[in-house]
Amino acid sequence: MIRIALDAMGGDFAPDEIVKGAVLASQELPDLEIFLVGSPDKIIQALKKHQEKGKLPIVTASEVIGMNEHPVQAVKQKKDASINVAVSLVKDGKADAVISAGNTGAIMAAALFKLGRIPGVERPAIATEFPLPTGKVLLLDMGANVDCKPKHLVQFAMMGRLYSQDVMRVENPRVGLLNLGEEKEKGNELTRETWPLLKQAQVNFIGNVESKEIFNGTVDVIVCDGFVGNLILKFGESLGTAIYKMMKKELSGGIMNKLGLALLYPGLKRLKKLVTYDEYGAAPLLGIQGIVYKAHGRSKAAAIKTAIKNTAEAIKGDLISSISKVSEKI
Amino acid sequence: MIRIALDAMGGDFAPDEIVKGAVLASQELPDLEIFLVGSPDKIIQALKKHQEKGKLPIVTASEVIGMNEHPVQAVKQKKDASINVAVSLVKDGKADAVISAGNTGAIMAAALFKLGRIPGVERPAIATEFPLPTGKVLLLDMGANVDCKPKHLVQFAMMGRLYSQDVMRVENPRVGLLNLGEEKEKGNELTRETWPLLKQAQVNFIGNVESKEIFNGTVDVIVCDGFVGNLILKFGESLGTAIYKMMKKELSGGIMNKLGLALLYPGLKRLKKLVTYDEYGAAPLLGIQGIVYKAHGRSKAAAIKTAIKNTAEAIKGDLISSISKVSEKI
Repeated sequence: MIRIALDAMGGDFAPDEIVKGAVLASQELPDLEIFLVGSPDKIIQALKKHQEKGKLPIVTASEVIGMNEHPVQAVKQKKDASINVAVSLVKDGKADAVISAGNTGAIMAAALFKLGRIPGVERPAIATEFPLPTGKVLLLDMGANVDCKPKHLVQFAMMGRLYSQDVMRVENPRVGLLNLGEEKEKGNELTRETWPLLKQAQVNFIGNVESKEIFNGTVDVIVCDGFVGNLILKFGESLGTAIYKMMKKELSGGIMNKLGLALLYPGLKRLKKLVTYDEYGAAPLLGIQGIVYKAHGRSKAAAIKTAIKNTAEAIKGDLISSISKVSEKI
Repeated sequence: MIRIALDAMGGDFAPDEIVKGAVLASQELPDLEIFLVGSPDKIIQALKKHQEKGKLPIVTASEVIGMNEHPVQAVKQKKDASINVAVSLVKDGKADAVISAGNTGAIMAAALFKLGRIPGVERPAIATEFPLPTGKVLLLDMGANVDCKPKHLVQFAMMGRLYSQDVMRVENPRVGLLNLGEEKEKGNELTRETWPLLKQAQVNFIGNVESKEIFNGTVDVIVCDGFVGNLILKFGESLGTAIYKMMKKELSGGIMNKLGLALLYPGLKRLKKLVTYDEYGAAPLLGIQGIVYKAHGRSKAAAIKTAIKNTAEAIKGDLISSISKVSEKI
């Protein structure tokens, strides 16, 4: 049986949507054990609301780390914070993985303090799966490491390749370096120095990938430093939302528009899903000695359900022993 | 009379769409003199196609620099390249500004060699105006400087502020630093060191701006290094196009969709314009001793027309003497 520790208190819509997501996932995947970690009163209240008939076990945690707290300090001071308790379940062998939609830095800090890094990995990274018209593409690092050295990007490439292969089930994943142009001389100091190292690394390196090619489906794993990755990620989300808003504005008012929108409703609903990332799932922290997933802070129930399903996949894919191979190759 | 040198040979759709753009602009702004720089045969052919009745003067240039040529080498070797000849018209006082949709590096190199930098400006920058639901926001640098020091970002801020104020007519423009979070401690080494310098600089610095806030309308000028700026710019363009394609795909097929799309046609056409940047205009090279605009490589006639109109605005705004003020403040 797969056991997942879910931080019920982390995220903008916690605990209600988090608990609801767990209920939905447990209905779809009955062989899953999901521990709801947090305030029992609040969790029970949320469970009642979503008319859960089965039993989801609750693990008590008396504190919560807010989205704007200083991650390292908060993780050290609030020993009984939900993220600390959830990660401890994995450390103690009581759960196979953790999922949290809370403060990213706090999740990373708790994971590093309690579970540690995989030997040989200098910098764990956050990897995000972007949906494409066809399939998916994995980008890393998405914000854990703002200043990187070339060797860190090489480790990201190796970890990303193993994740793509063993969890996303991509055969011989194509790995690219996010850059301004295709030629190896293009880019900044970091990318110019990383290029020859990736060429020699044990990955299927296809060269530089421009940001306009991210959605082309010509690459499976893209590496960049966490500053660039995080900017791109947040920009993409906001642009999707902005375009959707512009669309609503441009197409509002008048009987013709109303009728047109009514006719197009099913397609528009699908489009909204694709564009505004409502079912985004979660991003794995790669390089940690344990399976830890960070769900989007704005995650609602559907996103949490997807995150739980992805995490179950990662456990089945034996993510940790897979990523541990990285250390043998450095 | 305002005189503009237009590189008729630069860009993916040159010379046809470039010449057509000039024809359209000259019809709207008859007090403008637009020099078409390039191969006379090809320009005349394009002019005939667009049934120009007035006269647009042609300036002969026998060579062209391709989009993938090495910029500095090409500018040095091809003395009679259209971009070189166009920039020379400004240098010799025969034109007030240059516009080119050609190789960005070659435009920058030609501008630097022939016109030089404004004293005190260490690194000229490329600034792009992004359309917002309300107004516009100016981002720089968009790719001229891939590795920047904090002092360069401060100069970008000062130049951007003057451009926003004198050309875009924004009163006391709000200047932000593109970063991962709002707090001054956030970000990479570059942004953390730049923050206190911007705080002291003679700009209305409102602090860090996250990439998801670019389109919020809460900031007028955003500075970042050219690596990040270029990635964001190209990513934004491709995402806009990808979303538009997804929309077409999701809404195609079936009589309901066909009817719905027909009813929504006017709104969708406006949306496409906003999202796919067909009338994007052009980006000024700030810090150059002369007015030089880089139009998008994919510019068609409408974009060139907008670029010409923007450039005329910049000339009226006395851009150069405005930006020259930067040097007094460094």
